[in-house]
Amino acid sequence: MNITFVLYLDIIGTIVFAISGTLTAINNRFDLFGSLVIAFVTALGGGMIRDLLLGATPVLWVSQPQYLTYVVIGYLLALLFQSHILKLRRTMFLFDTIGIGLFTIIGLEKTISLGFPASIALTMGVISAVFGGVLRDLITNIVPLIFRKEIYATACLTGGICYILLEKIYDNQAFNIIITIILIIFIRILAVKKKWSLAFIPKNS
Amino acid sequence: MNITFVLYLDIIGTIVFAISGTLTAINNRFDLFGSLVIAFVTALGGGMIRDLLLGATPVLWVSQPQYLTYVVIGYLLALLFQSHILKLRRTMFLFDTIGIGLFTIIGLEKTISLGFPASIALTMGVISAVFGGVLRDLITNIVPLIFRKEIYATACLTGGICYILLEKIYDNQAFNIIITIILIIFIRILAVKKKWSLAFIPKNS
Amino acid sequence: MNITFVLYLDIIGTIVFAISGTLTAINNRFDLFGSLVIAFVTALGGGMIRDLLLGATPVLWVSQPQYLTYVVIGYLLALLFQSHILKLRRTMFLFDTIGIGLFTIIGLEKTISLGFPASIALTMGVISAVFGGVLRDLITNIVPLIFRKEIYATACLTGGICYILLEKIYDNQAFNIIITIILIIFIRILAVKKKWSLAFIPKNS
Repeated sequence: MNITFVLYLDIIGTIVFAISGTLTAINNRFDLFGSLVIAFVTALGGGMIRDLLLGATPVLWVSQPQYLTYVVIGYLLALLFQSHILKLRRTMFLFDTIGIGLFTIIGLEKTISLGFPASIALTMGVISAVFGGVLRDLITNIVPLIFRKEIYATACLTGGICYILLEKIYDNQAFNIIITIILIIFIRILAVKKKWSLAFIPKNS
Repeated sequence: MNITFVLYLDIIGTIVFAISGTLTAINNRFDLFGSLVIAFVTALGGGMIRDLLLGATPVLWVSQPQYLTYVVIGYLLALLFQSHILKLRRTMFLFDTIGIGLFTIIGLEKTISLGFPASIALTMGVISAVFGGVLRDLITNIVPLIFRKEIYATACLTGGICYILLEKIYDNQAFNIIITIILIIFIRILAVKKKWSLAFIPKNS
Repeated sequence: MNITFVLYLDIIGTIVFAISGTLTAINNRFDLFGSLVIAFVTALGGGMIRDLLLGATPVLWVSQPQYLTYVVIGYLLALLFQSHILKLRRTMFLFDTIGIGLFTIIGLEKTISLGFPASIALTMGVISAVFGGVLRDLITNIVPLIFRKEIYATACLTGGICYILLEKIYDNQAFNIIITIILIIFIRILAVKKKWSLAFIPKNS
């Protein structure tokens, strides 16, 4: 396993999610400290819940405090370039999707490396990817978007299954990760374009 | 301790709570994935919080992945029979109460078996029984019902105390469980019928 | 380290937060049981999250059940004297601020004593102090106040840094604690008086 490659992706994912959290907080008129907390929760919340449930404590950012620095970097980038970033909705969407793909794979890999079966690993992959956003939405008092719109988490799940299969066939992890992320991005973009949804929403609503 | 009997009750409780979670999610217009998450959180959330606080990690469903299957079974049952189940409000109420009673006893037993005192065991019994519903309500952005209506949790607490006392007198666990659950059901039905409440709500509200 | 002194402060902090939680719950028309849960969550929630993240499980109140008693004492005091306490808004504000200062220091000390670096200890100090209130606000379905008003958490952070510095200079812990708490109270009162805020709120809102 190419540790360095995954590590870089993890750092990028953390920064991207911190940016996305900070922007959400600013949109909801949180103050400077509140925005930092939301950046922290969005970037590290999914991994925190995963580590707690697996009993892999102290959780990641406690044993590796440099992750706090990555959050602060994302937070400062978002503050400095917020007007630019908000214009770049498409870019943010892309980054967000890349982050989700990465976190799915990282959660999955960590769980498997601790010796748990594939069903648990898949669940933990989804939890790592989406529960940062769920916590962000809970604190900003929004019903978590992921449960209502886009087939966000379905994309993670499909990507996770694809990755597990690829790992059994190819030995090239970087290749497998890139294919998986492309698949996740593809599903999300298609879902948004075609207005796919798994909703029960009746026609007249 | 009759492991098999309690195990069956635990499985039934998990399925019943997964049904109740799925129905709540559908009522709140969650999509298919969101409903599955709510089913999962409602059925396994109370036990998860209990295990985390006790330091009994990895939590139950991680060490015993078959619990994920029970959640999926409850979820599918709710999807298939939702129109029937929604008509059966009384049946659901009964099942929900049985689930609460079971989870109180299971949380209590697990905590005592880990060597903690009765005060902690009672608290963990209540947490196991009600925090799945609390998490469900938080995610669907409702103020948790249990804190406002019915003397839901008071019933758990009374049941838990009753069970601890019975255990000291009788050796027959199945008998003690059944008596406790009947007591909990009885309190809840009486509370709903008589509109009992522990509320501070002033007369003019 | 003067264990007894810190211990007394911790007990007082727990009782004060239980009072503040109960009053919030009553204001939101929670019932008697719901108010007890909110008292419990407000008083012990921050420390619980800290202990979970540090992997210091079972969490404090599970290994030391007397903390449940302190919560009940605060809860009963709030119920008995609620009309008086609500009149004493200033007193409550003062107590709340003292509680926050204490919990910052206690979280900080515990994390350092477990061998973690200062950046983690500061973060855990803030988490201990403010996440009880965050959980309280989440359950009562309010966007956590601390992220919008007052420079609440900024006061904790400043106090925490001050305390770490003082510890390196003076050996008298009681003195350091009192100085830190006075600083935190001073910042909060100034912030409220001068309407300081770290908000992004535009002028026309």
